[in-house]
Amino acid sequence: MTGKLTEDERKLELSPLFAQGWAAVEGRDAIAKTYEFGDFVSAFGFMTRAALWAEKMNHHPEWSNVYKTVEVTLSTHDADGLTMKDVDLARKMDTLA
Amino acid sequence: MTGKLTEDERKLELSPLFAQGWAAVEGRDAIAKTYEFGDFVSAFGFMTRAALWAEKMNHHPEWSNVYKTVEVTLSTHDADGLTMKDVDLARKMDTLA
Repeated sequence: MTGKLTEDERKLELSPLFAQGWAAVEGRDAIAKTYEFGDFVSAFGFMTRAALWAEKMNHHPEWSNVYKTVEVTLSTHDADGLTMKDVDLARKMDTLA
Repeated sequence: MTGKLTEDERKLELSPLFAQGWAAVEGRDAIAKTYEFGDFVSAFGFMTRAALWAEKMNHHPEWSNVYKTVEVTLSTHDADGLTMKDVDLARKMDTLA
């Protein structure tokens, strides 16, 4: 099992994500980001690429889609909070978007 | 533009959907359903099939996914409420699930 991020890891790993539009979720040890695309095909295309990686990484996002907008929340259920799995998936999603 | 469902159409078209697990959304002229699948691959596979149809029908769902669960809300933005587009997409999604 992947352990929760330590304070040092949080400073190191989360700051670059916050600079990329990720934000801490209120009342929960999780991060979230809203992606905007040009249209539904682009938005769902991103989701499809991210879904394949999520399955490969064995770590899945909580996400919603309304037309060209995709809202993503990441947290590790087994650890009840943020782990390196979330950091890795967040980075991967930013690369794919 | 597709018009909002009339009272007669609502009785006729929505009842069969309610019998299939769809429900009226509180405070909004919309319908919603939660689909449960065996795993993420099945859940996202359903979303992918539905996305292709949604794009083809030029009518898109509001939906969210958490692992093997997919929550769908349907309403027609242009009409500010339920139209036959929502009925058609709901039926198609039930067929695909």
